[in-house]
Amino acid sequence: MLESYSGISKKAGMPPGSLVHVGDFDEEDTRISVVDYSPGDLEEPVVETVEDLLKFRDKKSITWVLLEGLKNVEVTELIGRHFDIHPLVLEDILNTHQRPKFEEYDDYLYIVLKGLTVADESVANESVAPDKFEVNYEQISILVLNDFVFTFKEQKDELFLPLIQRIRNQTGKIRSLGTDYLTYAIIDSIVDQNFVLLDTMDERIDAIEEELLDDPDSCTLTSIQHLKRELIDIRRATSPQRELVAAILRSDHVLFSEKVDIYFRDVYDHVLRINESVDSYRDMLAGLLDIYVSSISNKMNEVMKILTVFASIFIPLTFIAGIYGMNFEYMPELKWKWAYPTLWVFFVTIPVALLIYFKKKKWL
Amino acid sequence: MLESYSGISKKAGMPPGSLVHVGDFDEEDTRISVVDYSPGDLEEPVVETVEDLLKFRDKKSITWVLLEGLKNVEVTELIGRHFDIHPLVLEDILNTHQRPKFEEYDDYLYIVLKGLTVADESVANESVAPDKFEVNYEQISILVLNDFVFTFKEQKDELFLPLIQRIRNQTGKIRSLGTDYLTYAIIDSIVDQNFVLLDTMDERIDAIEEELLDDPDSCTLTSIQHLKRELIDIRRATSPQRELVAAILRSDHVLFSEKVDIYFRDVYDHVLRINESVDSYRDMLAGLLDIYVSSISNKMNEVMKILTVFASIFIPLTFIAGIYGMNFEYMPELKWKWAYPTLWVFFVTIPVALLIYFKKKKWL
Amino acid sequence: MLESYSGISKKAGMPPGSLVHVGDFDEEDTRISVVDYSPGDLEEPVVETVEDLLKFRDKKSITWVLLEGLKNVEVTELIGRHFDIHPLVLEDILNTHQRPKFEEYDDYLYIVLKGLTVADESVANESVAPDKFEVNYEQISILVLNDFVFTFKEQKDELFLPLIQRIRNQTGKIRSLGTDYLTYAIIDSIVDQNFVLLDTMDERIDAIEEELLDDPDSCTLTSIQHLKRELIDIRRATSPQRELVAAILRSDHVLFSEKVDIYFRDVYDHVLRINESVDSYRDMLAGLLDIYVSSISNKMNEVMKILTVFASIFIPLTFIAGIYGMNFEYMPELKWKWAYPTLWVFFVTIPVALLIYFKKKKWL
Amino acid sequence: MLESYSGISKKAGMPPGSLVHVGDFDEEDTRISVVDYSPGDLEEPVVETVEDLLKFRDKKSITWVLLEGLKNVEVTELIGRHFDIHPLVLEDILNTHQRPKFEEYDDYLYIVLKGLTVADESVANESVAPDKFEVNYEQISILVLNDFVFTFKEQKDELFLPLIQRIRNQTGKIRSLGTDYLTYAIIDSIVDQNFVLLDTMDERIDAIEEELLDDPDSCTLTSIQHLKRELIDIRRATSPQRELVAAILRSDHVLFSEKVDIYFRDVYDHVLRINESVDSYRDMLAGLLDIYVSSISNKMNEVMKILTVFASIFIPLTFIAGIYGMNFEYMPELKWKWAYPTLWVFFVTIPVALLIYFKKKKWL
Amino acid sequence: MLESYSGISKKAGMPPGSLVHVGDFDEEDTRISVVDYSPGDLEEPVVETVEDLLKFRDKKSITWVLLEGLKNVEVTELIGRHFDIHPLVLEDILNTHQRPKFEEYDDYLYIVLKGLTVADESVANESVAPDKFEVNYEQISILVLNDFVFTFKEQKDELFLPLIQRIRNQTGKIRSLGTDYLTYAIIDSIVDQNFVLLDTMDERIDAIEEELLDDPDSCTLTSIQHLKRELIDIRRATSPQRELVAAILRSDHVLFSEKVDIYFRDVYDHVLRINESVDSYRDMLAGLLDIYVSSISNKMNEVMKILTVFASIFIPLTFIAGIYGMNFEYMPELKWKWAYPTLWVFFVTIPVALLIYFKKKKWL
Repeated sequence: MLESYSGISKKAGMPPGSLVHVGDFDEEDTRISVVDYSPGDLEEPVVETVEDLLKFRDKKSITWVLLEGLKNVEVTELIGRHFDIHPLVLEDILNTHQRPKFEEYDDYLYIVLKGLTVADESVANESVAPDKFEVNYEQISILVLNDFVFTFKEQKDELFLPLIQRIRNQTGKIRSLGTDYLTYAIIDSIVDQNFVLLDTMDERIDAIEEELLDDPDSCTLTSIQHLKRELIDIRRATSPQRELVAAILRSDHVLFSEKVDIYFRDVYDHVLRINESVDSYRDMLAGLLDIYVSSISNKMNEVMKILTVFASIFIPLTFIAGIYGMNFEYMPELKWKWAYPTLWVFFVTIPVALLIYFKKKKWL
Repeated sequence: MLESYSGISKKAGMPPGSLVHVGDFDEEDTRISVVDYSPGDLEEPVVETVEDLLKFRDKKSITWVLLEGLKNVEVTELIGRHFDIHPLVLEDILNTHQRPKFEEYDDYLYIVLKGLTVADESVANESVAPDKFEVNYEQISILVLNDFVFTFKEQKDELFLPLIQRIRNQTGKIRSLGTDYLTYAIIDSIVDQNFVLLDTMDERIDAIEEELLDDPDSCTLTSIQHLKRELIDIRRATSPQRELVAAILRSDHVLFSEKVDIYFRDVYDHVLRINESVDSYRDMLAGLLDIYVSSISNKMNEVMKILTVFASIFIPLTFIAGIYGMNFEYMPELKWKWAYPTLWVFFVTIPVALLIYFKKKKWL
Repeated sequence: MLESYSGISKKAGMPPGSLVHVGDFDEEDTRISVVDYSPGDLEEPVVETVEDLLKFRDKKSITWVLLEGLKNVEVTELIGRHFDIHPLVLEDILNTHQRPKFEEYDDYLYIVLKGLTVADESVANESVAPDKFEVNYEQISILVLNDFVFTFKEQKDELFLPLIQRIRNQTGKIRSLGTDYLTYAIIDSIVDQNFVLLDTMDERIDAIEEELLDDPDSCTLTSIQHLKRELIDIRRATSPQRELVAAILRSDHVLFSEKVDIYFRDVYDHVLRINESVDSYRDMLAGLLDIYVSSISNKMNEVMKILTVFASIFIPLTFIAGIYGMNFEYMPELKWKWAYPTLWVFFVTIPVALLIYFKKKKWL
Repeated sequence: MLESYSGISKKAGMPPGSLVHVGDFDEEDTRISVVDYSPGDLEEPVVETVEDLLKFRDKKSITWVLLEGLKNVEVTELIGRHFDIHPLVLEDILNTHQRPKFEEYDDYLYIVLKGLTVADESVANESVAPDKFEVNYEQISILVLNDFVFTFKEQKDELFLPLIQRIRNQTGKIRSLGTDYLTYAIIDSIVDQNFVLLDTMDERIDAIEEELLDDPDSCTLTSIQHLKRELIDIRRATSPQRELVAAILRSDHVLFSEKVDIYFRDVYDHVLRINESVDSYRDMLAGLLDIYVSSISNKMNEVMKILTVFASIFIPLTFIAGIYGMNFEYMPELKWKWAYPTLWVFFVTIPVALLIYFKKKKWL
Repeated sequence: MLESYSGISKKAGMPPGSLVHVGDFDEEDTRISVVDYSPGDLEEPVVETVEDLLKFRDKKSITWVLLEGLKNVEVTELIGRHFDIHPLVLEDILNTHQRPKFEEYDDYLYIVLKGLTVADESVANESVAPDKFEVNYEQISILVLNDFVFTFKEQKDELFLPLIQRIRNQTGKIRSLGTDYLTYAIIDSIVDQNFVLLDTMDERIDAIEEELLDDPDSCTLTSIQHLKRELIDIRRATSPQRELVAAILRSDHVLFSEKVDIYFRDVYDHVLRINESVDSYRDMLAGLLDIYVSSISNKMNEVMKILTVFASIFIPLTFIAGIYGMNFEYMPELKWKWAYPTLWVFFVTIPVALLIYFKKKKWL
């Protein structure tokens, strides 16, 4: 499930800007990593407290601060105080039920996205049916300042590792460009993650389609329904991304130079493609449901034909046998010598005639 | 039901501005409460009549007047006269079948919203099926003047209690801000109430889904249909909120300072999320209906298979027994010594063969 | 039915402006009534011919001319000539298959609306099924001039009586305002009439829903379908009203002062609400159809279960009885003393066992 | 069918402006008629070749050239050369698979429309099922020049005859107005033709509805499907007309004076109404399909009930008869004197009891 | 299938501008052809390496470079370096999962399209069912420079041969116009290719429709579903073309002169028509599915009727025969002389009566 409202509804009634963490992930502590780089220089210092970050403010380098795990509310609060972030923004960072959005402030930009990953358990865990898969919806917040970029993730994972590798590589273009390009690179990493998800979705739909042609059972229906529901959630996470990237493209904030626009246009294309895919998966699942329903009807048809063939053949014969089982005193046929063999002729020809009739009706 | 038109249709033909209360709640008298505050001061005077409010007009403080229960039309009429409110606005306050809307006048603003709460009876009352729940649609009108805010509620409840608590707390930000921020806080309280409703909705949908997988009956269909209908009503109440908050954001009325925009943007996000949830619940219910219909077909399939298996096995056997129940004089088999045991071989092998056949067809 | 095209298609090929009455109502003659009023004065003269109206042109009062029955084409033609109305407008007044619309001319405004009323016959007539109701779609044209308002109705009824009463009341606000306010009052009367219709619709849907839970038959389907079709027509009549009132609000024609805008905004809200209701009725009817279809399947399921239970129990028993009805000479069981009572044990235990089995499958 | 692509796809690969006739009508030769008129003068000369038209270029009258039959490509080519028409326009005139559109050029305007007529054969031809009807989609191109109007039709018919009659009538308004009014009159003739089609559609839908209530068979389904498909095509032909007339209304080309706008607004209303009708027919057909599907289920239900009643009554009775048909030596009942009559009591009471039971279940 | 994401998802994490070929076609080497022309001159030189192209840069002629096969990444890279193309554009050319789009750069334009062709194998290969057809989705990129046009195709085929022929023809209009007209001609070739596809689609739908009326089986359902799925993909490829050509029409880039606009408007019309056709095919397939589902129900109905007729006729008769098969000592009827013939009267009249009854119910 994308979200249960249990958390949010309990928050109803609090004043705005109340910093309370609302989320589904249970990361105990917050991990802070820093990548500080300029064209010629790279530093990855060990950072324990928020105060350790302040010294980078005076440096002319670009500082990317990665925070993983949001349970420790104080860290976010301290960053807010030191870097002068609006309390509502801090609240949104911690309350992980935000819609993807892009907000411009005088000194900084705030971007929220959903990182979609296929949950590992659904692969590892044996008890889960193979055609069910869980999607993790992780909220990733990005704060873009003049020469600082903060990313707030709910989970500790290696999503940004390839990007950090590219920064470490001194000849990479990323080293020579500003925070806007870094922001692009971060968003691009998150958006491209969706393609992995769509790959998995693709496989599942193909698997169901095969199952449908092979031997559909009520399990197949549950699988279709499960995917449909997951798709509703995925759609809710991916469809506002379109609007988000479009807003970035429209924006003329000083922090975003025009040179990066072409890169964001590229992300925009990816987002469009993802949304189109999600829409066509929706159509495909609707199609699969149609096949499923028809296949049930087809099966019942077949069952009915068998019953009808059996009943239609033997019920008349049983009647004939019943006639000559009667005990009347005056039944002349009973005494005829050839009566019994003659009856056998009927017993053979009637079924044969009916079978030919059913054959002609294509029931056999 | 969201509304029955019986009330409104009877009003058809009256001149505009006729002050008649049209509503579903039976609160006898109107309760007037007042919270008057400034950064350093807080007063919660007991107020009996509308005239008691007039003295606050000269005070430089912000005065929030809470009216609960609309049956007493005179109260609204007096407020209209003293504070110079257009008769059509007064009519809209009393006629509780308004669409959520935002209207700007020269000296004041008028906002109508629907407060959605899960009816308590549906929890307490034993006779109501547990998976049915009634939603109360209470109309809440907000009048924003220069340093007055009026809220007109149909019911007496504790919806605004947490907000009043925040005002009582002297260090709260709300004390130092104007009527626009108070308006925001009121709307936020009402909108966030919807999350509680969505929580309940969520639980009911999950319960129905479990029921469907377990043992669906015609009751399940009624539950799905009931939720669907409730959702149509919820949608009608929540979807105009989007437009409403967007209109507030676009507005450049003097009573709304730009500083509060960021808070309304937050409410806007909530409203968007609520609407998206309602839409996805709709999709989910459609999916549940599909499962229900398929499960009925599946059940019938199963019934048909049992019938077919029984009939196909015993009908031919009965025919065979019928043959040797005939009374012909010349039936040589009847005299054979091993005829009867031989027949038993058939009586055993035919059903076994048919059972193997049905097994292969996966009917058993 | 909203319209049959038989009339219009026959008109195809005529030059524009040909004044031919096309309509479904058979009012023989045209009734002309006049209400002439100013703040201090009220006159309701008897008017026989169009020429009688001309004297009011020089008076400074507001003259409302009500024409009921359109068969007498000359009346409309004369009004057109005397008040200088474009022939195409006159044609639209007489051809009662117009879409609701608002057209601005230099000296006058032309508004067409559909007045929806529940046909009386459908209540009075016994032969009509009680859950069928016919809707009358009457075209009402409004011509707004400087100090003249013409309304052209197809039928003679008392739709405008309450409004005339309000004008007669000397203290009424309507007496002191201009033709624009009168126009508003007329449109408001027509639009509010829809609420009465929606009330009836509401009752019918509730009745069908009860019928569905009670005992649906093929009649229920016809009722649903009838309402659905009626709703398609209602929608076609009400949905352009939205656009119409919006156009009036946008208009800056000299005949409409800004002061009346607030009243039209009120009408606009009503129109929005009517359209939303029509849409949600549509959804509800779709839901009812789903229930109907499922209930048929449920019923068939039940029938099949009865058949299966009967057949599965008695077919095997009949076979057993058949075995011992055979006439073989060598059937040792026939001679055993306890054979017959033993068989009765089977005759009792087999059905009991099967009944328990079916009970467990929840078929009984 | 609206179009088969066989023609167009073969044209793929040709240079633009290649003049090849692509169409479904087999008119051998092209008929050229001319109506040349001014307020005081009317001429209808016999015209054989395109060159004959050139002399009207110097006359101050309005010349309407009607071309019927497009197989003779040279005629179109010559007109193009003499009146300086862009090759692409000529290509569109000849390739009769254009979408309805309106194109403005410096010296002329180009309008393409679909003329929809019910094919005569479908009425005359006995072999065609009466509820099937074919629609002819004829492309009509209109070229509007300064004082020339060309209409290119695929077929020779009398569509424009009433219009020509109006021109012949010297007192007609059309004589005194320009090419823009003539263009309006031509488009109006074509658009109004659709009402005739809708009339036929109306009748067919009513016929199907009656059939459905009476005795639906698989033929009914085919009829519904046929109408549905025809409606898809009609929609494709009529829905771009809306856009087309709107484009004409927006246009400020010198050839169209503002005075004609009111007439085009009238056409626009007609087009809107046609499109709304097509949409509601679509909804109605969907409703009819629902009834059809339900009626099949209802029928099956009835069949099943008959079977169940018969089987449930006689199968137990047959079993009882079977018991006393057994040949055991020790069956005391066989010797009782009143055994047989007693059994008859059962034979009568059991069916009666079951019939009452089924009656109560409303199966009979 | 339009695309599997396996390729793209593996690319996730790479820096932008990484030149890696992602595609489904296995063309080993890249074929470079060149058509260099001016009004008076035509050259088709053999080109081996990218460097061979450079000499045409100084010539005043238009040079069209056709590249077929994208596996050889270096070729694209070299072109990018020599002609100063942005790395992201080069990446898009090689990654063949782009959405159709149009991008403007200072010195050049970049257009991506999907070329849709019916796969030849599906015709040639015998093992493929005749009503299944595979569509090839080939990405075609067009780079428009000042006097260079590059086309990048995935496959080697003869799509552009007719166009090259037109260039070879010295009198052709294309020789005298610029790169913008060439671009138009290329896009037109690609778009018109879709009509061939629609032709095939048309034939398949007609074939399925015939099959449905003749004798539908579960294969028919698979065919419908297959077409539906293919249509989803086709739609995804063709629907962005509309936007693309509209963007070209809106563009005021120096490389596109206004004179070519009329040609692009023509392409735009084609694209609209293709999209409308795809939409109506969608509707048609939905209609075919409805017929299929109904035909299954109809078939089951027929089967049930046969069963009911047989069972209803013979079950009562068998019971009667059963009665007189009983062995009671006191059964007076058994001794009557006319009992047996009398019974035969029943044996004949009962079935006849029932058959008449069923006939009246139209079951036979």
